Amino acid sequence: MIRHIVLFTWTETATDEQKETVTAELGKLPGIIPQLRSYTVGPDAGINQGNHDYAVVADFDDVDDYLVYRDHPHHQAVIAEHIRPILASRAAVQLSL
Amino acid sequence: MIRHIVLFTWTETATDEQKETVTAELGKLPGIIPQLRSYTVGPDAGINQGNHDYAVVADFDDVDDYLVYRDHPHHQAVIAEHIRPILASRAAVQLSL
Repeated sequence: MIRHIVLFTWTETATDEQKETVTAELGKLPGIIPQLRSYTVGPDAGINQGNHDYAVVADFDDVDDYLVYRDHPHHQAVIAEHIRPILASRAAVQLSL
Repeated sequence: MIRHIVLFTWTETATDEQKETVTAELGKLPGIIPQLRSYTVGPDAGINQGNHDYAVVADFDDVDDYLVYRDHPHHQAVIAEHIRPILASRAAVQLSL
């Protein structure tokens, strides 16, 4: 299994509507990209100070399935249209489990 | 459910032995902290450039169980003795699912 993990911080000018649109648009991807075995996305819960703002955890059977997701035009469109315009920083890891 | 996610980068001087010890020591925690419902840890798989070096994804029934883990003396000892000495940067999010 490959577990893809990415954390974002948003720009100071990002609006609540823009942030909520990220969740709405990412939430459509499991219906479009069947290689997604599990997909958990959302904003930080606000328990700790100094956290990043948003997380995506996506599970795949193998590396090839992850690459289908990574390079999928619908996924790339969400990144280009909704994530990148409000992105301040990004941290990612893929775990091989 | 609370999903705790943390990504690390290691210092340039961190040795393979030090990095492997982090995995060995974190791997003991599910046997010590029963609040951990799922625990996946490990180094980045090397698929993409520019990634962080290491990831921890820990699932809990609720915030209180996460706080038991966060503040548990065995967990804090692994951080102090094995993670902090080779830590360059850290990014974290808690998702409420």
